[in-house]
Amino acid sequence: DPNLKIFSLNSNHKLAEEIAKVVGVELGKCSVTRFSDGEIQINIEESIRGCDVYVVQPTSAPVNESLMELLIMIDALKRASAKTINIVMPYYGYARQDRKARAREPITAKLVANLIETAGATRVIALDLHAPQIQGFFDIPNDHLMGVPILADYFKKKKFTDDIVIVSPDHGGVTRARKMADRLKAPIAIIDKRRPRPNVAEVMNIVGNIEGKIAILIDDIIDTAGTITLAANALVENGAKEVYACCTHPVLSGPAIERINNSKIKELVVTNSIALSEEKKSDKIVELSIAALLGEAIIRVHEELSVSTLFD
Amino acid sequence: DPNLKIFSLNSNHKLAEEIAKVVGVELGKCSVTRFSDGEIQINIEESIRGCDVYVVQPTSAPVNESLMELLIMIDALKRASAKTINIVMPYYGYARQDRKARAREPITAKLVANLIETAGATRVIALDLHAPQIQGFFDIPNDHLMGVPILADYFKKKKFTDDIVIVSPDHGGVTRARKMADRLKAPIAIIDKRRPRPNVAEVMNIVGNIEGKIAILIDDIIDTAGTITLAANALVENGAKEVYACCTHPVLSGPAIERINNSKIKELVVTNSIALSEEKKSDKIVELSIAALLGEAIIRVHEELSVSTLFD
Ligand SMILES: Nc1ncnc2c1ncn2[C@@H]1O[C@H](COP(=O)(O)O)[C@@H](O)[C@H]1O
Ligand SMILES: Nc1ncnc2c1ncn2[C@@H]1O[C@H](COP(=O)(O)O)[C@@H](O)[C@H]1O
Repeated sequence: DPNLKIFSLNSNHKLAEEIAKVVGVELGKCSVTRFSDGEIQINIEESIRGCDVYVVQPTSAPVNESLMELLIMIDALKRASAKTINIVMPYYGYARQDRKARAREPITAKLVANLIETAGATRVIALDLHAPQIQGFFDIPNDHLMGVPILADYFKKKKFTDDIVIVSPDHGGVTRARKMADRLKAPIAIIDKRRPRPNVAEVMNIVGNIEGKIAILIDDIIDTAGTITLAANALVENGAKEVYACCTHPVLSGPAIERINNSKIKELVVTNSIALSEEKKSDKIVELSIAALLGEAIIRVHEELSVSTLFD
Repeated sequence: DPNLKIFSLNSNHKLAEEIAKVVGVELGKCSVTRFSDGEIQINIEESIRGCDVYVVQPTSAPVNESLMELLIMIDALKRASAKTINIVMPYYGYARQDRKARAREPITAKLVANLIETAGATRVIALDLHAPQIQGFFDIPNDHLMGVPILADYFKKKKFTDDIVIVSPDHGGVTRARKMADRLKAPIAIIDKRRPRPNVAEVMNIVGNIEGKIAILIDDIIDTAGTITLAANALVENGAKEVYACCTHPVLSGPAIERINNSKIKELVVTNSIALSEEKKSDKIVELSIAALLGEAIIRVHEELSVSTLFD
C-alpha cells in the first residue's frame, strides 16, 4: 500500500529498519540533523500527503532530544497533510514520573502524552508501559503491546531440565511475573525487601521456594541495575541453582553494566525497544527483537484504517 | 508581596539572580537535576499555592534540555496550584523556524508556543523575538520587550567624536537598524548581498555612506557569526574608520568566537539574554545586563495582576 509510510528518527534506526522489513516497505526518506546551535532540523524528503504515517521513535536517552525530535516530526507531518500520524514508541521516556509521589512533583508522563497530542499525533503504539494507567493519559487511541511472550519464548527454547521459578524483584512486579510463569508453567517467588528498623540495612527476604531451581528474574525496566543484581545475588545465596534476568527495556544507565558483569546473573535477556550503545554491550546480555511484534501491530492498525477512519 | 515568586531553571541562573534583586525578592527554592538515565527531576522546595510565579528560562543551548526543563516546571507549578505561571524567556529557542520556507518543514516556533501553553503557562515575557509574528503564535498574553535601548545607551555613553552610522547586515534587519539610529541620531546603511550570476561569489555592496565613519552593525541573533564578520570586513575595506557590532542574543555557536576574534570587529556588544559559557568569552565581547528591563517588566505585570485578574 503506497499510502503506508514508516519513518525513523534517530533513537533506534536499526529497529525501524527491521520493522519496515516485516511490514514490507522501505523506510521513508527524511533527515533529522542539528543546526550549529543544537536546534533540530528535520527534512521530510518525500511526499506524505494523504498517507498513514508511522514514526518509530522510542523516547530513550538522550530522552529530551528524542522527545523533541518526535514532536517536531509530528508537527512537520501534520503541516504536510499526513492523513494519520501514528507513533511507534516502544519505550516511553518519563514513564516512571507517572504520579505525584511527593508534594509539588510534576507528572511528566502525563505532560509527555499532552505534548504528543498537541503536536498532532493521532495514535500511539506502546510496549510494556511502566504503569498501564499511562494509556489513560492519552485521549487518542493507543495500543499497548506486551513483551512477556517474546521473553518467555526465549526461555522455553532453552528446554531447561531443572525446575524453574519466575521471580519478581519487588512487590510491584508480581503481576508481570505471574504472566511469565503462566507461559512457562512455572511457580513464582517474590523478593520481599524490608527495613526492620530505620538506619538498619534492608533484609532481602525471599517469599516462595527457589532452592535448587533455576530462577528467572523479570522486570519491565532495568535502569541502574541495583535492584536486579542485589536480587540475583540474594537468590544464589539462598540456594537457587542459577539466576537469569530479563526485562523489556534495557535503560542500563550509570553503573548498570559493571553491576551486571559483577553479579551472579548468568544471562540478562532484553528486547531492542532501546538500542544498546557500544558501552552498554556485555557478553551477558542477549537481545531479542520486537520488530515482528511492532510490524504486525502496524499491519493490524493499518488494516483497520483502510476500512474506516478511526479518528475524526 | 509574598505572593510573587521567581524561580530559575538551569539555563541562566546569574540573570535570574539579578532579576530577583531588581524585583526585591529572593529566588524561590527548587532543584532541577537529572536522574541517572538523563530524565529531568524537578523539586519545588517551597509552597507556591495561590502565588504569581515567574520562571526565568531562556531556551538557549542545550535548547531541548532547556525547553523540557521549562515544560516540566510549568507542569509541576500548575499541579501545585500556582495562581499564574509567567514565563520569562528572554531568548526564544527555535525562533528562526517560524515559517515553512520549504515543503514539509515544521514550524517549530509555533510548536514551542503550543507546548508552553499546553503545559499550563498563563503569560510569556519575551525579548527581541526573531520575528514579532511569534507573539501571535500564543493565545495567552505576552509582552515583547526591546533590547535596542540598552544597546544604544551603551554606544551613547562612548561619546564618539567621529560621525557614526548604524548598519544592518542584511535586508531583514533594516527596521531594527532604524530604531537604533533614531536613538543615536545617526544615519543608516545596509549591506546588500547579491549573487550577480549563479555559481559566482556573492558581492557585498554597501548602500549608504560609511566612509570615514564609525560603523555599528546591529542584528538580533549572532549565531555562527559568518554574516556579521563578513559585513564588518567589507565595511573596513570600503573605508569605515572603525567597526563595532551588537546584538541582543549571543548564540555564538560553532566557529563564532574564532571568527569574531579574527575579524575587523573592534568590540561586540551583547546582552545576557543567553549566558556566555567559558568557551564563548572573548576580550572583544562586552556583555550588558537586561535584568533591570526584565525585573521592571515583572513588577509592571504583577501590579496589573494585583488590580484585576487577567486570566481566568
Ligand atoms: N528516570 C528516573 N530514574 C529513577 N527514578 C525515577 C525516574 N523517574 C521517576 N523516578 C522515580 O521513581 C519512582 C517511581 O518508580 P516506581 O515506584 O518504580 O513506579 C518515583 O519516586 C519517581 O520520582
Ligand atoms: N537554529 C538554526 N540555525 C540556523 N538556521 C536556522 C536555524 N533554525 C532555522 N534556521 C533556518 O534559518 C532560516 C530562517 O532565518 P531568517 O531568514 O533569518 O529568518 C530558515 O531557512 C530556517 O530553516
